[in-house]
Amino acid sequence: MERKITLTEKEMPKQWYNILADLSSPIDPPLHPVTLEPATPDLLSAIFPMALIEQEMSSQRWIDIPSEVMDKLSIWRPSPMYRAYGLEQALGTPAKIYYKWEGVSPAGSHKPNTAIAQAYYNKKEGINKLSTETGAGQWGSSLSLAGSMFGIEVLVYMVKCSYDMKPSRRLMMETWGGKCISSPSNTTDSGRNILKEDPNCPGSLGIAISEAVEVALKNKDTNYALGSVLNHVLLHQSVIGLECKEQFKKVGDYPDVVIGCVGGGSNFGGIATPFAYDKIHGSKNVRLVAVEPTACPTLTKGIYAYDYGDTAKMAPVVKMHTLGHDFVPASIHAGGLRYHGMAPIVSKLVQENLVEAVAYHQKPVFDAAILFAKTEGHIVAPETAHAVKGAIEEALKAKEEGKERTILFNCSGHGHFDMTSYQKYFENKLEDFEYPEDEIKKALLKLPKV
Amino acid sequence: MERKITLTEKEMPKQWYNILADLSSPIDPPLHPVTLEPATPDLLSAIFPMALIEQEMSSQRWIDIPSEVMDKLSIWRPSPMYRAYGLEQALGTPAKIYYKWEGVSPAGSHKPNTAIAQAYYNKKEGINKLSTETGAGQWGSSLSLAGSMFGIEVLVYMVKCSYDMKPSRRLMMETWGGKCISSPSNTTDSGRNILKEDPNCPGSLGIAISEAVEVALKNKDTNYALGSVLNHVLLHQSVIGLECKEQFKKVGDYPDVVIGCVGGGSNFGGIATPFAYDKIHGSKNVRLVAVEPTACPTLTKGIYAYDYGDTAKMAPVVKMHTLGHDFVPASIHAGGLRYHGMAPIVSKLVQENLVEAVAYHQKPVFDAAILFAKTEGHIVAPETAHAVKGAIEEALKAKEEGKERTILFNCSGHGHFDMTSYQKYFENKLEDFEYPEDEIKKALLKLPKV
Repeated sequence: MERKITLTEKEMPKQWYNILADLSSPIDPPLHPVTLEPATPDLLSAIFPMALIEQEMSSQRWIDIPSEVMDKLSIWRPSPMYRAYGLEQALGTPAKIYYKWEGVSPAGSHKPNTAIAQAYYNKKEGINKLSTETGAGQWGSSLSLAGSMFGIEVLVYMVKCSYDMKPSRRLMMETWGGKCISSPSNTTDSGRNILKEDPNCPGSLGIAISEAVEVALKNKDTNYALGSVLNHVLLHQSVIGLECKEQFKKVGDYPDVVIGCVGGGSNFGGIATPFAYDKIHGSKNVRLVAVEPTACPTLTKGIYAYDYGDTAKMAPVVKMHTLGHDFVPASIHAGGLRYHGMAPIVSKLVQENLVEAVAYHQKPVFDAAILFAKTEGHIVAPETAHAVKGAIEEALKAKEEGKERTILFNCSGHGHFDMTSYQKYFENKLEDFEYPEDEIKKALLKLPKV
Repeated sequence: MERKITLTEKEMPKQWYNILADLSSPIDPPLHPVTLEPATPDLLSAIFPMALIEQEMSSQRWIDIPSEVMDKLSIWRPSPMYRAYGLEQALGTPAKIYYKWEGVSPAGSHKPNTAIAQAYYNKKEGINKLSTETGAGQWGSSLSLAGSMFGIEVLVYMVKCSYDMKPSRRLMMETWGGKCISSPSNTTDSGRNILKEDPNCPGSLGIAISEAVEVALKNKDTNYALGSVLNHVLLHQSVIGLECKEQFKKVGDYPDVVIGCVGGGSNFGGIATPFAYDKIHGSKNVRLVAVEPTACPTLTKGIYAYDYGDTAKMAPVVKMHTLGHDFVPASIHAGGLRYHGMAPIVSKLVQENLVEAVAYHQKPVFDAAILFAKTEGHIVAPETAHAVKGAIEEALKAKEEGKERTILFNCSGHGHFDMTSYQKYFENKLEDFEYPEDEIKKALLKLPKV
């Protein structure tokens, strides 16, 4: 069998899959961060285009992908699904390991799948400016790429410490015409207020969100865009799993387990929800496994409750697994997995026992990434390495049990801009943090009283 | 028509094309650097495996690609050929622009095409250690990748200033198990001699070659590997052009002009020689255009003569276009194009008027790269940007003339590890060097007296 299972552009999914249509009960509605009343479309329309608000709340199972979006996605989609022969051999496992390789996008991860769609819908509703925040820089560069494709000006508030430490990610945004501002900045009230108190503040994702949302709220021509968590983001990412299902058909196989890393939940949701469809409709019995870092164990140790999406309490309040909106995770290197909350859809699937969660320390996670690089070639992002680790564990379990098993994981992005975390690994300078157990009690006290 | 013209693994070329079989006269033989007598296979076998020496001198037109090599190449091959709809639209040209995207390899360029083959043949002849040099780091990481695939220890001498400035490239090599040493080093006589004279020497490609060759000469278990210039390297790269021809068949098209950037000549040779075949055999009339930087204009201003392949006069003397073996090009950012010489095959094709050459300044070259990123998504390496510029010029000429034209260029690699050169461009700090005309007279005086 071939190493890469590929699809032609003609075989790309023409509709997104919306799992909201298949949940046993409706998802709890987002609440206004101040009134704690259900957020109305009107309220959201200050920062989002109507098409995305409709998708956010839609119960339509299949939603057409506009041809303009398909056209831009075809720059890197359909992405290849690999049979990991090299890794299988190294592990001596009877399991078949497959991985979906999202690192082929120009920004290097799955993020542009939704960035392209969001830019398109905004442009269609006359929006020529988008503001957003970025931590590690993956989302900021993806939205800058999408902006260049649709003639939208993109303003990215990048957490100051990342801005200073990862100049290449910032330069990538600028290459696509994005404007990247170190946050906190003096371009917004929220930024100025923080700088007044602490001129050397290193920034945080919470602060950057506040700045980006403020710009969108204050400027009629500017909308805000979010790269994870929300329902419409997971909807756009469903192309990943839909393609995998087509690719499995080509080789006459089907996974026993589907694995992805989780931060906000978008890449996991993207690969998992189309398989969850089969599970919900009873046609297949497939395990869905979300992998997170022990340093930020949202699904494995968090509580399922309404909480703020950001530290500054400006974003909608959603029902999700959370470690508390002011929890600051230890600075592990997988920046994309350092989020206190989780996509409401992924949280709900965990609550309904459709998704399992597991957490790993970062040293064994990097061990897995190195083995993967040496056997499969690709150097993955530290976030993605969690999924690799999850897949290896499943393959070793199969070996122990002497059972064949088909494993699929989402290889969500390359690590070209993360080589300094590999350096820390080589220099044995990685620290392994355990989530402090008493944190969750503190978090409970600060939840919004809904 | 689809944006990407793809091939399945089954459609991969099964043989390399050896243009040595089709030249009007044999290529002038390499000479021993000391005796200036034709180099015998015996002499070369101290550092190369016999299979590669045979390929270097073979006049067999088609050479089978071993299945073990095919298997590893299939990690990223066949690579996609794109129709550049976005770029065409931005230029408003009647020309059809296609590009072959070699940035999909794990190391990010075309270099692993030959690294995999070289590692395979060495391993087959019992070699478990390879030494090499690297400037910008592309070749060192490609050989490290190949080493990890075949269980070969790879020792890379990386020019000190690059070693210090590009830690990510070095870390990439280490991730694949390669050992990267800053050159000049105290691990070789040549390194120690240089450090004795100048402890702060920033290194050069010439010095790094000397160190790598010395290690291979002194250790029976170690061979040396070169990433460009040599005939067998261009042979292995022919898969690029062979795939393009298959891809053009799929869409019923054929190029009027094929473009690539040239440093040592391997990516250009790889895309151009299979088209040169059609030209030589009279079946097609296609222009082949090599693009180089004005700061290092080997083909456009160099002389065609026997010269040393390296500054230290340790490598074989070959007949090629040269700017003189001790010419130090201005530090433009396209490090891969800063070579004083040129592949003998490419030089010969220029001499026989089968290949044209053109040189551009680096500012317009970066303008081209930015336009490409904004319209096609991919951020290319500074070397590759020269080919983009060449293609844009051809497309604008077609527009002026109001003529349809089919253009193909080799998009040889991504720029993820070169974002600081983009930064210099944005900050308007790029300097444009013109080749100093009197240099060539100096070079003439230092040519070996053959």
